[in-house]
Amino acid sequence: MALLGGKVVALAGGVGGAKLALGFARLLPPERLTIVVNTGDDETFHGLHVSPDLDTMLYTLAGISNGETGWGIAGETFHALGMLGRYGADTWFNLGDRDLATHIRRTQRLSEGASLSEVTSELCRSLGIEHPIVPMSDQQVRTYLKTGDGDLAMQEYFVGRRSEPVVNCVEYRGVAESSPSGGFARSLDGAEMIVLCPSNPLLSTGPILSLPGIRERLSEKNPGRCRIAVSPIIGGEAVKGPAAKIMSELGHEASCLGVAKMYGDICDLFLMDEVDRDRAPAVAELGIEPVVAPILMHTEEDKIALAKLILELGGSFLNGG
Amino acid sequence: MALLGGKVVALAGGVGGAKLALGFARLLPPERLTIVVNTGDDETFHGLHVSPDLDTMLYTLAGISNGETGWGIAGETFHALGMLGRYGADTWFNLGDRDLATHIRRTQRLSEGASLSEVTSELCRSLGIEHPIVPMSDQQVRTYLKTGDGDLAMQEYFVGRRSEPVVNCVEYRGVAESSPSGGFARSLDGAEMIVLCPSNPLLSTGPILSLPGIRERLSEKNPGRCRIAVSPIIGGEAVKGPAAKIMSELGHEASCLGVAKMYGDICDLFLMDEVDRDRAPAVAELGIEPVVAPILMHTEEDKIALAKLILELGGSFLNGG
Repeated sequence: MALLGGKVVALAGGVGGAKLALGFARLLPPERLTIVVNTGDDETFHGLHVSPDLDTMLYTLAGISNGETGWGIAGETFHALGMLGRYGADTWFNLGDRDLATHIRRTQRLSEGASLSEVTSELCRSLGIEHPIVPMSDQQVRTYLKTGDGDLAMQEYFVGRRSEPVVNCVEYRGVAESSPSGGFARSLDGAEMIVLCPSNPLLSTGPILSLPGIRERLSEKNPGRCRIAVSPIIGGEAVKGPAAKIMSELGHEASCLGVAKMYGDICDLFLMDEVDRDRAPAVAELGIEPVVAPILMHTEEDKIALAKLILELGGSFLNGG
Repeated sequence: MALLGGKVVALAGGVGGAKLALGFARLLPPERLTIVVNTGDDETFHGLHVSPDLDTMLYTLAGISNGETGWGIAGETFHALGMLGRYGADTWFNLGDRDLATHIRRTQRLSEGASLSEVTSELCRSLGIEHPIVPMSDQQVRTYLKTGDGDLAMQEYFVGRRSEPVVNCVEYRGVAESSPSGGFARSLDGAEMIVLCPSNPLLSTGPILSLPGIRERLSEKNPGRCRIAVSPIIGGEAVKGPAAKIMSELGHEASCLGVAKMYGDICDLFLMDEVDRDRAPAVAELGIEPVVAPILMHTEEDKIALAKLILELGGSFLNGG
């Protein structure tokens, strides 16, 4: 099969998105890939601007991420955080010493008037990352979960409360007043493929798709473009994180089919795992072409193989295959 | 000899001041000691408010200071700074990981509207320090050195340029518009002893003494109060730092006598080292009583012994001894 030859835009959240983005980065030159990252999880800790999904993406593509935890930097120390705890600060959100430097630098540059896109680009350059990583927006959008325990910001829910409270509603605060970042908006012009990475559809791709104009642009019929999603749910369980739990609490089916339904209007091909083969006919009924394939990524080889498969599928799709 | 029984105010800069303050803290209960610290060296690094002299004092009294370097925290790591360097930040000012937590916390609290005095008090409490440490002012005063290489802020000159440029003038920018902190102003009410610690008279005690009203208050004749200074210069050399060099460049004699001259109007007793005994008559001519004593502090015993001697001298002075 011929690989897709044009530009690819990957929409990603945290760990799952970063894995697949790494695969694409190994296969595509920088000018053919744009990685758009959720910033709905951004939070201020200790007066510093933390962008958890951007950082996971940066550290993964820079080859310095902690493969065991999925977040942070390999070999990290936590001396500053220990001292912050001694000063009475809340330290439930783990921030390593090297990681803190990222937040310090970002906060300083933002306070100097740089946009989040500019700062992210600078950080990428410093870390030797050549592929463009762009925040979904330069404005503030904050994902809140309405729960029986009150409204919780994403990190408060996910890290602080271990995703335990029952979720009644997910809100992307500020999204209506925000706009896609320039890098994101431009990347969609002439993109041959849009990839919805295996990220939480409510908490990771959800904020990205809710930005003004984005869902409309992605739902346009365009024969020169392939839109492909990878299920973050395998066999009814999220590969990582609380996606299945929250989908279920919000009345969605906690399965790859439930994800496919959320992407029904913006998806041509849907990649799902072998164990979910029995859901393929129901996915097809949505007007989406189901593709059963090994989508669980452990090794770097897995990541590259999945990215290659997606480029092949995109190539075939555009050639009427 | 009877020790002085009333309240003591110690005016201090960095390392030398912290050594003597530790001696006083070992001898006096918290309600009898106020340690007033220079903030003219404060600087913003990476968007964080750094107060080098306050931190040296805090870490020394908390028992966590690095005795070898004189600054920072013992056993410190520098992982965040290394990463900041990777991001292209200037890293000539050494900031350890634990130390950074102090600056992060201070910056956050200041941005929330707390005064520097309040933040310092909070940090002290967290570190188990019972004796009050107060910044000289809650307003911004910045010590600048006019040199042949341009105007340099204190840390830029001292750390960044290793005190090498020739100094033509020292300025305390903002001092005329500032006021002493409430804690400092109150400490002078009813103080039985004012101690000018062995700190740089131009760069450490200079800013403190230049605050509106301070020099006037200290120069008032008051038989119920003893004002005592400890020379930071021994045998023509500063114990630490560039005091002798700068005094000389500004036309002062680089000796304990040169220091005594700067303190002429605000000093009753002047402690000088044995090696400077020949200058004692000249000090006496200034109307200051010279006291030759071992003033070099290496061990904690040295610090306590010097503090005890000062309390004895103060007691004798007030009893007409």
